[in-house]
Amino acid sequence: MHTPHVRPASTVGPEMYEPTARLGLLAEGKFHPRSAKTAFGILRHAPNPVVAVIDHTQAGKNARDLSGIAHRDVPVVATVEEAITLGMEVMVIGIAPRGGLLPESWRQMIITCLSNGVDVAAGLHTFLNDDPTFAEIAERHGRRMYDVRRPPHGIGVATGACRDLAGKRIVLTVGTDCAVGKKHVAIAVAEELRRRGVRATWVPTGQTGIFIAGWGIAIDNVLSDFTAGAAELLVLEAAKEADVILVEGQGALLHPGYSGVTLSLIHGAMPTDFLFCHASSPVAIEPEYGITPPSMTEMIALHEHVVRHTRPAKVRGIAVNTSTAGDAEARAQCDALAAETRLPVTDVIRYGAGPLAEALM
Amino acid sequence: MHTPHVRPASTVGPEMYEPTARLGLLAEGKFHPRSAKTAFGILRHAPNPVVAVIDHTQAGKNARDLSGIAHRDVPVVATVEEAITLGMEVMVIGIAPRGGLLPESWRQMIITCLSNGVDVAAGLHTFLNDDPTFAEIAERHGRRMYDVRRPPHGIGVATGACRDLAGKRIVLTVGTDCAVGKKHVAIAVAEELRRRGVRATWVPTGQTGIFIAGWGIAIDNVLSDFTAGAAELLVLEAAKEADVILVEGQGALLHPGYSGVTLSLIHGAMPTDFLFCHASSPVAIEPEYGITPPSMTEMIALHEHVVRHTRPAKVRGIAVNTSTAGDAEARAQCDALAAETRLPVTDVIRYGAGPLAEALM
Repeated sequence: MHTPHVRPASTVGPEMYEPTARLGLLAEGKFHPRSAKTAFGILRHAPNPVVAVIDHTQAGKNARDLSGIAHRDVPVVATVEEAITLGMEVMVIGIAPRGGLLPESWRQMIITCLSNGVDVAAGLHTFLNDDPTFAEIAERHGRRMYDVRRPPHGIGVATGACRDLAGKRIVLTVGTDCAVGKKHVAIAVAEELRRRGVRATWVPTGQTGIFIAGWGIAIDNVLSDFTAGAAELLVLEAAKEADVILVEGQGALLHPGYSGVTLSLIHGAMPTDFLFCHASSPVAIEPEYGITPPSMTEMIALHEHVVRHTRPAKVRGIAVNTSTAGDAEARAQCDALAAETRLPVTDVIRYGAGPLAEALM
Repeated sequence: MHTPHVRPASTVGPEMYEPTARLGLLAEGKFHPRSAKTAFGILRHAPNPVVAVIDHTQAGKNARDLSGIAHRDVPVVATVEEAITLGMEVMVIGIAPRGGLLPESWRQMIITCLSNGVDVAAGLHTFLNDDPTFAEIAERHGRRMYDVRRPPHGIGVATGACRDLAGKRIVLTVGTDCAVGKKHVAIAVAEELRRRGVRATWVPTGQTGIFIAGWGIAIDNVLSDFTAGAAELLVLEAAKEADVILVEGQGALLHPGYSGVTLSLIHGAMPTDFLFCHASSPVAIEPEYGITPPSMTEMIALHEHVVRHTRPAKVRGIAVNTSTAGDAEARAQCDALAAETRLPVTDVIRYGAGPLAEALM
């Protein structure tokens, strides 16, 4: 099932390690799908070999068993030193600390890496390269620190240029909430389309996507004046080599914290089509913001309304993340949404991305 | 007519000069309403005395005649030196250079100020304080540089807290485009409500608003992840001293470059009501983006749809900027919109803010 993603030779994005670099994934105390999204995304999709996951609370287990990602036979170890022994060349910080501040124990792990021939990569809001201590140690030992969330210079205000990409299909994954699988669906549908002979690619718009694809811009870390411009830049870049461009969605139009990121992405990318992503268990807007999500029919109507006057786009299919449901329940959830919306509905992990790829051909 | 705005003792925002500081406004070659929005906003609304406008192409004229702002008898001069002679204590850069880079002649003007006892204030994307040359000269001469667009530290992701402000009315000015008068309407309606005995205030969300009010955050210069959070912080601050809070709008929901800023503001501020702002001559989305603006009825429907599931809000009135129209035409435009929408419609400069204030009482 696993087809490693081929990295394009893109100039848009931060400096990145090679797709052959052997990674260790720091997920200290948090190697779970929700809290270590970046580690899980890398395990599932990145071309890089992974030599170890570092989480002393689960040391001795195997990442394959803990994640269910079949092609990753990776030991979970307790210490950075063990990961170095296993051949780690780059340590990737696979979790995000609350408030963006690094715990003291992580700082020591980063210093251990830099002092022992290992580069460090992170997608934090604050940049490793801006830390004087890290910078001095990296300089002294000739090591590199990759800050994948640092946006490139020279991003401007969006110009609407993606509307002029004649013959290109721009497909944005949107969602009922954050963390419902928008990145995964973009990747899976692009891969499925390529298997069917379509010149398709996907556009990374967040830190994990950049770790996977080796290029991209974390648009949530761009000044709001230029966020749509960043999305536009990415789509224009991807359009050079593809006819169907799957754009990784961010946030959600109904998530009060991140809706502006979502709308910037919509107006920067100027999609021709949407794929809707949904998780069958509550994620953030309901428990954290007290928002009652409307029906899927209304969700779709809202998204199509928002783009009606700039570039009309239709929702072509729905991807449901049924990971918390049993087989019968998962099938019933998909069938109910299909009956309600008359759209193709699938769980791309459980049933594959075929129905969504077909809807775009 | 002019009632100077009283600055609140707010701690939210950049370091600012005093409301009594004597200003000179740099508008070199561009002292026109469109290109010197900041200079015009300060002349119209700021409490500070203004001793000179600097624009050598219009030297010898009077800012009152050029701007139509009756209470500002201000000479336009050719040089910084003349403004210093007239008593300038702070030079405010009242125009924004394309691409954010300062022309060499402006750099020299800033250095002349700093070397001759004059502080400098700017709302540029790049900060004066980050320029090593300026920083060194300011340090040597004991001068200050005010970067009003620099956001405060510690802005977080929006939490939806403004929905919990019991008994407060939060009124956001939204618009059919950028530069249609959203700030001016917020200020004018807040003033009109205060005249009628309501505890009303307004919230500055952009650089000109900060120059006027002496506090605020330029939300377009905040990372997109935190833009709604910045808007929330401002409204919570204003709610400490007011029952009706007029929030200065930014961008436009149909402006592809800035729509994300607009939606962040909507979901951060969680308005209870909207006031709609419109200019009767085309501004940006039509000529620059090729977007055909829908009818006002549809514009209103779109805005009310976007907030239906987070916090429902209604449009209560419309402000038209008829500055390019004659008297009869202006009246006809307002009457036509009132007939179409059955809402109160006014031009707050031509006819006053009364109808909008009444709609909120």
